[in-house]
Amino acid sequence: MALKDAVAAARNEDGIAAVVAELKQRFADRLQTGQAFREQHGHTTTYLPTQAPDAVVWPETTEEVSAIVKLCAANRVPVIPFGVGSSLEGQVNAPAGGITINTSRMNKVLSVDSDDLDCTIQPGVTREDLNVHLRDTGLFFPIDPGANASLGGMAATRASGTNAVRYGTMRDNVLALEVVMADGTIVQTAKRAKKTSAGYDLTRLMVGSEGTLGIITKLTLKLFGIPQAISGGICTFPSLDAACRAVISTVQMGIPVARIELVNALQMQAINRYNKTDYPEQPCLFLEFHGSDAGVAEQAELFGEIAADLDGGPFHWTKVAEERAKLWKARHQAYHAAEALAPHKKALSTDACVPISRLADCIAETEQDIDELGLVAPIVGHAGDGNFHTLVLIDMDDPDEIARAETFIERLARRAIAMDGTITGEHGIGQGKMAYLREELGPAVDVMRAVKTALDPLNILNPGKILPA
Amino acid sequence: MALKDAVAAARNEDGIAAVVAELKQRFADRLQTGQAFREQHGHTTTYLPTQAPDAVVWPETTEEVSAIVKLCAANRVPVIPFGVGSSLEGQVNAPAGGITINTSRMNKVLSVDSDDLDCTIQPGVTREDLNVHLRDTGLFFPIDPGANASLGGMAATRASGTNAVRYGTMRDNVLALEVVMADGTIVQTAKRAKKTSAGYDLTRLMVGSEGTLGIITKLTLKLFGIPQAISGGICTFPSLDAACRAVISTVQMGIPVARIELVNALQMQAINRYNKTDYPEQPCLFLEFHGSDAGVAEQAELFGEIAADLDGGPFHWTKVAEERAKLWKARHQAYHAAEALAPHKKALSTDACVPISRLADCIAETEQDIDELGLVAPIVGHAGDGNFHTLVLIDMDDPDEIARAETFIERLARRAIAMDGTITGEHGIGQGKMAYLREELGPAVDVMRAVKTALDPLNILNPGKILPA
Repeated sequence: MALKDAVAAARNEDGIAAVVAELKQRFADRLQTGQAFREQHGHTTTYLPTQAPDAVVWPETTEEVSAIVKLCAANRVPVIPFGVGSSLEGQVNAPAGGITINTSRMNKVLSVDSDDLDCTIQPGVTREDLNVHLRDTGLFFPIDPGANASLGGMAATRASGTNAVRYGTMRDNVLALEVVMADGTIVQTAKRAKKTSAGYDLTRLMVGSEGTLGIITKLTLKLFGIPQAISGGICTFPSLDAACRAVISTVQMGIPVARIELVNALQMQAINRYNKTDYPEQPCLFLEFHGSDAGVAEQAELFGEIAADLDGGPFHWTKVAEERAKLWKARHQAYHAAEALAPHKKALSTDACVPISRLADCIAETEQDIDELGLVAPIVGHAGDGNFHTLVLIDMDDPDEIARAETFIERLARRAIAMDGTITGEHGIGQGKMAYLREELGPAVDVMRAVKTALDPLNILNPGKILPA
Repeated sequence: MALKDAVAAARNEDGIAAVVAELKQRFADRLQTGQAFREQHGHTTTYLPTQAPDAVVWPETTEEVSAIVKLCAANRVPVIPFGVGSSLEGQVNAPAGGITINTSRMNKVLSVDSDDLDCTIQPGVTREDLNVHLRDTGLFFPIDPGANASLGGMAATRASGTNAVRYGTMRDNVLALEVVMADGTIVQTAKRAKKTSAGYDLTRLMVGSEGTLGIITKLTLKLFGIPQAISGGICTFPSLDAACRAVISTVQMGIPVARIELVNALQMQAINRYNKTDYPEQPCLFLEFHGSDAGVAEQAELFGEIAADLDGGPFHWTKVAEERAKLWKARHQAYHAAEALAPHKKALSTDACVPISRLADCIAETEQDIDELGLVAPIVGHAGDGNFHTLVLIDMDDPDEIARAETFIERLARRAIAMDGTITGEHGIGQGKMAYLREELGPAVDVMRAVKTALDPLNILNPGKILPA
């Protein structure tokens, strides 16, 4: 059961003590063992219990990361990489203790190449920092998971977000990585060419491996030109099914939407209450279009026709930056708006992703389940990808509500799998989803295990994540 | 040296005899051991010597592939997957003998989902077969490596081609694979959702693994709507540098070109001679635009302005299908046109890919090298990706020309690596590029080796490819 997954594992007390002592020598104030520091570096988001590491270290170079990993390998001590701690499935927890590597001092943009539309950065650079740095270049990095996550962390969890429908996920936008392997070896996974057939795709193997195969110490990322024009709008629909049909038609017609976000009626209520707005409280799509002036107008008009055919709309869109900002502020605050529905409860975000032909069915069954189980759980979705989140609000002092939430999560995971979808579109497995990985992928999990064992034979890299023991 | 790589390895004669005998029992006429069959299934393209397998088997189901692999594993006999044999780096050779699995009877399109824009097929389906099958759906599969390759083979070599600049490579367009592993286990790498963060990206690990980690028995591929409008044209430039600058500006401005192909002056001569056309014999870009009527017009006009700024053009473009077909026939026949420059010679295609900011320098130095070494080697390039091919024409009876070709290949590989590029953008490593993989990726090759050993401990899956012994 997801809520009970985060159990502690056996600790190597002697090894940990030896490593902490030696790191203290080398890193002085850049190593911290105080309880507050340690607890901040365990899982602090959503419902999973915090499992603090024994120490936190702030390296500044790849060589320092390598030295830390070598020391931990020699003493068989777990190493947990940490960006800003915004992951949602317990990826930064330390179930067997160990050393957390905080990458926040590795925050340099090392190079930006505007001819090649790429940049090379250290892993602690956040997506907002990067875009501030790029401000005067006419370029931007599009992936936006909501939180101002570190890019190393975003690569590690294969993050995406609202505009993946247009720009892809971290899988698509990482050109190359520098990685410290479990024995401290520093590996460059690829060169800077846009494509390659040179051997196994180690870049993609590392993206999404959640720190269990190596520690990312450098990233080369694709960049994009800031579009000439951006327009956006919101469109209501008489039903979730109609909204989903509109998404399918939009994608089928090849309209290159930059964002097409689904929000259900309860989430619209939460948004209105939180922002004191008066959007219609029925299923909505939030849209954004990127392109030339003529292009964004054409896209918006085509979408408006699709919506009208499905009794949606009318679709009002705007190129005025302030109005767009207001719109997306409402969407981006959906999480906090949902939390505000029940401030004393813990919020648990689910992350199912199904083929878009099944999205309407999947959400409809999920809404029905929420009603049946008496839960409060608004829904937002990256509908162009078939990915949606329910934010289940749980009173952690109410065992019955916890049990009903567990039933809900389990049914949702099985529903997504049964619809040929996945239990996680962008949050990763971490601790929270381990119980369902084999249900989804069967013997592929044994292949993953073989890769893990080959690359981290001592199981020191972020142990207790992704692969059940 | 690349030309000498294809050496034979130790053969397990007893194991091979046992496997052939047992397969003959089970597969009857679907197993062949005649010399003609065997030689057709060794490497038959370009310069590498043919190394025939001991037998060729035509399975029809995944279960049959699994049974063959299990039998080969039990007897430690190599298994070599074969699509149509259009790979260029000796991927289908059998340096230690063994059994070739010909997938041509696994040629069914299993499902097409037009809402989800995907299809599931068997590996022997060729890209042209698939597009014929899709004819009435309004959808198409874009990746076009030139040859009518099997899609299993295209996935295995991480193929791409002329329109990767718009649609990506096989890396980007495979949603999921079914793979028979080295012990015969059947694994599904992913579900059919558009994105996933569920564990290690086994799909991408298998794409580009050239049959050395598993045998692909099923593919789920992304499809695209056939664009409303397609336009195309050819544009001459005063220099290679100007042509490359035009490519960089086009990509920087975010013009979503579907194809932007560079052809050098010698290749234009070859095309004119072969097709009896009279294109200007100077550096050219061949372009194609996909979109709405207004969109393709806007794209072509923007490109025309870029070209004019660089003293290129004038850029004439057309939406007339026949004229476009003539244009792309000329481009697609570039390989045969180049071969026709010296019909008695063997043609060797190189495959460097560099950051596009370095493409002009890389090609200029390569042209100079060709002159210095007295070789005939026209150049075509997928310029939007920084990928180009020289077709080196070699008289295999002239040891001096062979030596000069070897020098050229070696220098080109090192030049691409020095420019932060790769020795192979889309052909793969096979046998021909093994000597340079470590120069390109250093200790990453050890990580690849560890993965190979973990997943194929007996080294029976396409041995002697990608990773040097």
